[in-house]
Parts: sequence; C-alpha cells; structure tokens
Amino acid sequence: MTQRKGFLSLGAFLYPSGHHIAAWRHPEAKADAGIDFRHYIELAQAAEAAKFDLIFLADGVGTRGDNVDFLSRTAHSYQAQFEPITLLSALAAVTQRIGLVATASTSFNEPYHIARKFASLDHISGGRAGWNLVTSSSAHEARNFNREEHFAHADRYERASEFADVVAGLWNSWEDDAFERDKAGGRFYDPDKRHVLHHRGKHFSVQGPLNVSRPPQGHPVVVQAGSSEAGRELAARTAEAVFTAQQTLEDAVAFYADIKGRLARYGRDADDLKILPGVFPVVGRSESEAKEKFEQLQSLIDPVVGLALVSGLTGGFDLSGHPLDGPIPPLPETNASKSRQQLMIDLARRENLTIRQLYQRVAGARGHWQLVGTPGQIADQLEERFVHHGADGYNIMAPTLPGGLTDFIALVLPELRRRGLFRSEYEGRTLREHLGLKRPAHPAPAARKAIAGAREATPLSVPAAG
Amino acid sequence: MTQRKGFLSLGAFLYPSGHHIAAWRHPEAKADAGIDFRHYIELAQAAEAAKFDLIFLADGVGTRGDNVDFLSRTAHSYQAQFEPITLLSALAAVTQRIGLVATASTSFNEPYHIARKFASLDHISGGRAGWNLVTSSSAHEARNFNREEHFAHADRYERASEFADVVAGLWNSWEDDAFERDKAGGRFYDPDKRHVLHHRGKHFSVQGPLNVSRPPQGHPVVVQAGSSEAGRELAARTAEAVFTAQQTLEDAVAFYADIKGRLARYGRDADDLKILPGVFPVVGRSESEAKEKFEQLQSLIDPVVGLALVSGLTGGFDLSGHPLDGPIPPLPETNASKSRQQLMIDLARRENLTIRQLYQRVAGARGHWQLVGTPGQIADQLEERFVHHGADGYNIMAPTLPGGLTDFIALVLPELRRRGLFRSEYEGRTLREHLGLKRPAHPAPAARKAIAGAREATPLSVPAAG
Repeated sequence: MTQRKGFLSLGAFLYPSGHHIAAWRHPEAKADAGIDFRHYIELAQAAEAAKFDLIFLADGVGTRGDNVDFLSRTAHSYQAQFEPITLLSALAAVTQRIGLVATASTSFNEPYHIARKFASLDHISGGRAGWNLVTSSSAHEARNFNREEHFAHADRYERASEFADVVAGLWNSWEDDAFERDKAGGRFYDPDKRHVLHHRGKHFSVQGPLNVSRPPQGHPVVVQAGSSEAGRELAARTAEAVFTAQQTLEDAVAFYADIKGRLARYGRDADDLKILPGVFPVVGRSESEAKEKFEQLQSLIDPVVGLALVSGLTGGFDLSGHPLDGPIPPLPETNASKSRQQLMIDLARRENLTIRQLYQRVAGARGHWQLVGTPGQIADQLEERFVHHGADGYNIMAPTLPGGLTDFIALVLPELRRRGLFRSEYEGRTLREHLGLKRPAHPAPAARKAIAGAREATPLSVPAAG
Repeated sequence: MTQRKGFLSLGAFLYPSGHHIAAWRHPEAKADAGIDFRHYIELAQAAEAAKFDLIFLADGVGTRGDNVDFLSRTAHSYQAQFEPITLLSALAAVTQRIGLVATASTSFNEPYHIARKFASLDHISGGRAGWNLVTSSSAHEARNFNREEHFAHADRYERASEFADVVAGLWNSWEDDAFERDKAGGRFYDPDKRHVLHHRGKHFSVQGPLNVSRPPQGHPVVVQAGSSEAGRELAARTAEAVFTAQQTLEDAVAFYADIKGRLARYGRDADDLKILPGVFPVVGRSESEAKEKFEQLQSLIDPVVGLALVSGLTGGFDLSGHPLDGPIPPLPETNASKSRQQLMIDLARRENLTIRQLYQRVAGARGHWQLVGTPGQIADQLEERFVHHGADGYNIMAPTLPGGLTDFIALVLPELRRRGLFRSEYEGRTLREHLGLKRPAHPAPAARKAIAGAREATPLSVPAAG
C-alpha cells in the first residue's frame, strides 16, 4: 500500500456498556455502566496503557431517545449516566497522559462557563483537555432550557460560530506569563498581560477576563462533528479535529479533501485540523468468530428500539406506520441534524435497504463505519483510508465495553504497530502533542514586538532633519 | 461547660494559598496554588485523614476583585484558579470518604445543568456531593453573561428559590429503583418510576426528566450562605446547611435560633439544617506564637488591597476619597450582598474602627470569625458557641494553606477530641451521614402506597350490597 508519514491518531469513544444499541443486554455487559465510575476508570486506564491519543465522551442535554416520543423507550439504556465534564475531570486524576475530550453543546450553554470548565480541566490534567463543540437539535433538549423548540439549523450554527469565538477569546484573557506572583513586590500579575475581551455580538455580550489562567495547551483542543455545509465551514475556521461518519472510502476521501481544502481560506495549514472518522469494529480471531459476535449483538435488538433509532437518525420522522420490510419512504426536510439524516438516506438507497434492514445496519454504530472481521482485515481497512487521505485517525466505537475495546487493543493494535501505523509509546505529554497540533501562541506578545520593532525602525527610515 | 450530644461538624474551606488576603505572599506559600492540582490533592487528603465532614469551595463567575475597578488589582491573588465543579470531580477520584461541596450561582446558570452536574458528582463520589447555592451580586459577573448589571436583590432570591425547586424536582426524575436493567426482558427501566417534571414558572420552563439516575444521597446536600431576610427564608425552606459569619456569640445564638425557628413552618425539624459558621483560626503553641503568626500575615497586606477589600465588602462603594485613619462614612444602600455589608458596618461601629483598622480587622477572614490563640483557647471558643447552640459545626478557613490547615489538624483537633467534640473515625459513608442529615425519600412510592392502601381499604368500609 502507499506510504504515509507519521502515525494515525486513535480515540477511544466511551459509551456506557458499548456502542451497539443492545450492548447492555450482552451477557458480559455491566448494565449499570453509565453510573459505574470504576468501569470508566478501567476503560480510561486501558486506553492509556494502549497509548490512545484520547478518550471521547458524547453528550446530550436531555435523556437520549426522547426525540422519538411515539415509541416505547424502556429498552433504551442511554437514559441516565454521568455528565461528561464531571466524569472527565474525575478521570483526569487517575490518568497521566491520555487526552480527555468531552462534548458540550453551544445551544444551551454560556461561553463563559464552557471556556472556564475546559480551561480548568486543561490545568487539572496538565494539558490534556479537548472540547467537542456541538449544537443541539432536538426539541426534548430545548424543553429543558426554557424553549419549546430547538433553534433552527442556521441559527444554531450562527450561535455556535460566535460561541466558539468568545471561548477562544476568553482563553486568551491572560498571556502565558501574565502571573508574576512576585511576593516581595506584592504584584500577583502584570496588568499589561491581562486582556479584557469586551465581546458584543448578536448572541452574546461577554466582558471577561476569564478567571482561569491561560490553559497549558494555550487552548484546549477544539473538536467538531457537524458535516453540513455550515458545520464544515465552522470546522474549517475553528476546529482542530473533526469527528465524522463517512461509510465508504470514496465519501471519506471526498469529505477529507473538502474540509482540508477549506482551511487555506482561514490562513490555516492542512495539518492544523485532523479528521477522525468513527469506526465500529467487531474483531474476531477468525472471520466467523467476528460475524458470530456481531450476530449475537444484532439478535439482542428490540425491533421497537431499532425503529426508534432509525426515526431519530432520519430527523425524528415517524416511520412506525410504514411496513418494516418495505423501503424507506421519502422524508420531508427537517430542522434536525441534516448531515446525519442525509447519511442515513444515502446508505438506504445505496444498499437498497428496507426499514428493518436499515435499523439492523445502523443499530450498532448509529450511522458510523462498521467493520466486522479479523485483525488483519480491520487493519487493512484502517490503513487504506489513512494512506488514501480519507482519515488522519479514528475514533474507536467499541461495540461492547470493556470487551470490544480490550479486543481492539489486544488484536488490532499489534497489527497496526507491525505496519508502523501506531505508536508504542507516547512521544508527548499533551493532547495537542499526541495529535501533532501546534500550540496556539497568544497574539499579544507578537503584536507588542511588531510595535516595538516599528518604533525602533522609525528613526532609521526617516531622513535626518536639517 | 454545658453538654451537648453528638460531634460538631467540620468543613475545610479550601482557598488557593489560604484565606488571609496576603497569604500568597507568605514565605511558605505556593503562590500558584490556585492552579496546582497536587496542592489540592494534598489538602483534600489531609482533611480526609483528619476526618473532616467535607471540603468546601467558594466561587464567583468572574475574576474576583473586579468589583472594585477604581483600585489597583494587581496584588489580588484570586484572579485565576480552578473552576470548583471540575476540581471537586477530580478530587472525588483521589478521596474515599470526605464530603465535596462546591459553590454554584443560580443567577447565571440553568437548573438543568446544575442538577445534572451535582447528581453526576454524587454518583462519581459515592454520595459525597454538596451544592452551595448562592446568588451573584456583582456587575462584573453579570457582564460575562449578557447583562450590564446584576439582578436586584429581590429578583435574585426569587430566581434562586424557583431554581432550587427545579433542581430538587429534577433530582426526583427517577425513583431509586427505576432502573431494572432486565437484560432478558429487554427492559432498562420501569416507566412508572420515571417522573417528568413539566415545570413552568416565572423564571424557568424545564420539562425533564434529568438524564442522571437518582443521586446516591437522594439529593446532594444543599448548602446556603445568605443571611438577609430573603436568604434566611430560602435557607429555612430549602437548605440543609448554612454557612454563615457571625462575629459574636450573642449574634451567633440569635442567628441560630432565628433560622432553626423558621423550619417548622416548612414541616422541617431543627436537625434538618446544620449551621456552620466560618472560622479563621490562627493557632500557635503559645499565645505569643499565634499573635506573631498573625502579625506576620497582617504585615504583608498591601494597603491598596485592604481598601479594595473593604470597599467590596461594604457594597462596592468607593472609599478611596476618605482618610484611611478616619471613620467609615455613611454608606448608601446598594443592590449588593446586604448581609455582608451590614456585618461590616456593625463591626466598624461596635469596635469604633477607622477604615485602616477595619481592613486590618477583616482582611484575613473577609468578615468571618477570627480566632488567634493556643489550641486550648481556640477549642474553648468553638466549644462555647457549639454548646450554646450558636453553631452545629464550623467551616475552617485556614489563614495559609497547607500550613494553617495542618496546624489546625495537629494542634486543635486533638483538643476537640479530648473534649469529645469531634470524631476519630468516620461513622458513615456519605456527606449526609457525616452531617447527620436524613436521606430524602422519593415522594412517589409513599404516594403509591397511600393510593393502594385506600383502594384496599375501600371494600371493607363499604357495606355489602344487597
């Protein structure tokens, strides 16, 4: 296969009992994993021992599954679990090197709180924090925050864009060396190195400064997941990693080229943003073992839950009146996540799936890339997409946890290492260093230097008077 | 001295380098304590080894000291530090028994986020979370949240009151045994044990349910600090511990009687709320050693910082035009924290203090109760207030950290234990158990039982037909 320099990046996307929708029903599953802190410690420490770049936590500000109110929800296991920022902060104390990425929505939060919590987590963890910026697209979340409906797609992204700018501005409230802490002189900080934001925009007025000193990473790493036009543009301008969901090599390469192609417009290099598709791997020592594992999980899916899932992924549209073994009906455009809706529809058309086949097809990875096979087969696929510039790495969505993650570590990682595709030791200390991302410099020192340079230069360029 | 049953409760109120305003300038201080996670681990573990009930973290949603813009702030050390919820979550992972209380404002937060984060922390810590409910009273905080001015006192408390109800309602979203996790039957939860809040009030519309199962403590412990009329009434209705600041035994006993006297109105017992004044102890092996320690800290106060502090505590009123060695001028009423303002004015009048004397008097404990003496003298004072029902325990505000806390542990705790006033071992596992607070029962099972009882009773009480 073609060569490509450097290692691929790996995230361990943690989800209570695993990513397969029926994972909690697996005989080995801890069904109460969502509130079992010991379980998450084991997962985080296993991922760190295996030298993953990061662990990743999704989020929603409501009980998941409630966007499909017309269906029974009692078989959903995502109703109640830890909140990601508290959980990652706790995991920071029992890990040393692995990155810690939590999702937080811009739709029902305030930028001051988000800037502050991720800056604090970055300090607690010694530079390992990342924020997965999302927008919220379901009415059941809006109803927990004084609204009847979620924001329309365009408004959501406009708000998210301003939100990202305010957060970045707040992270620059203090220069890296603003705090002198001069005991004898009684000066705690240098007032010239304190920057008050004074932001006044359409959605937010935020004065600042942030009450946390500049994060060890400069800025915690900003991750995004949107694949719509607005989402892509926001990612190109502000994100440093994109978590995405293309199903085929062709789509992945096109998406990769599209996003990377947008960066120059914002004065950014291709290496300033990493593309990390989600991968749902079912690994077996033989192909048949992998298939059996997968079939066992598939057999545990309650049809009602499968249908609810497809309805949710296609925009909350009620499919319950349509025959399970018939085709997906034409769907009206909604305000919900456009990119996921389109991915579902494309998948159903490409593979000519019935409603039942579609839910069976997506139940595990919830629309992400599903690989069922031997370590070699899975490594082939991961390598192919990496070397063809369809991905810079992957966010691993283990079907069951811890089993699916420990299988991946025990079986697939040695194969990736044998091929020179993944590290055996951490080279750096921060999440940024793991991902190969530059540390953002504070803009003020360079600006000061330029002004001072101009002052010094002036006398030389002005002819002597008289 | 009079006897009183049971132990007193002790909180370790952690503050970066210590509570004395010049603590960071002390030769032994870690001036960067506010972002030194190792420092906080040592403090939390020391407090736990000493069997404190809890550690306590204050908070503000802006840089502290910015409410006195007309004065130099560069000697303030409270500009930048960890955010409390992330910090406590991280500390939860490296402690086993001690309670974890973080402050969070109701003025610039949403109840869904607060209910969720404290419920999550309660699960992570195995039932050790507490929320110190405050309102925000400074314009510089408001300006970080889309406002020019903070809310007026009455509005703040009205909002806080509704906020507390929504949070309590969300913590009851799920009954304790709502999650069946029946793998074979495919039922994750019992829908009859899921309670949707459907709150619609003046300040908040929150549908629920919360996406965290019921906290191990039922509800995390709710702490409050307001001493105004509105603050006292809110505490009597909703709080389980009150952190307060009376200077004299007489005031403490009056405050204690007042608050406890309000409880019956809400169907609560006197034991359902604990009163924990702040205490700023400077301990020496001899009286002169204690005084020397204190004078060393006092000598480190920058007069500008002292003046800023007094201005801040008296409502943000600019005192800089008045002579430092003259009396406190009459102050106009402000929208700021009324109780603290009144405490300052009363103190200045009672002791006939000049502006300079007032700042020297309050700089250490920022208006809290200051005790400088030997272990015996300090224990006498703590015992006296406890046995006279002026306090159920204390929140210890060590002048320097870790030194002031380790001194208190090494010198005062043995004296308290000798007198039978403080535990030598934890009796319980949760913060509620440490404080002697009942676990709130979910209201639904009792209601169901009553209905079932009524149904069963009905046939017996109806005469046989025919």
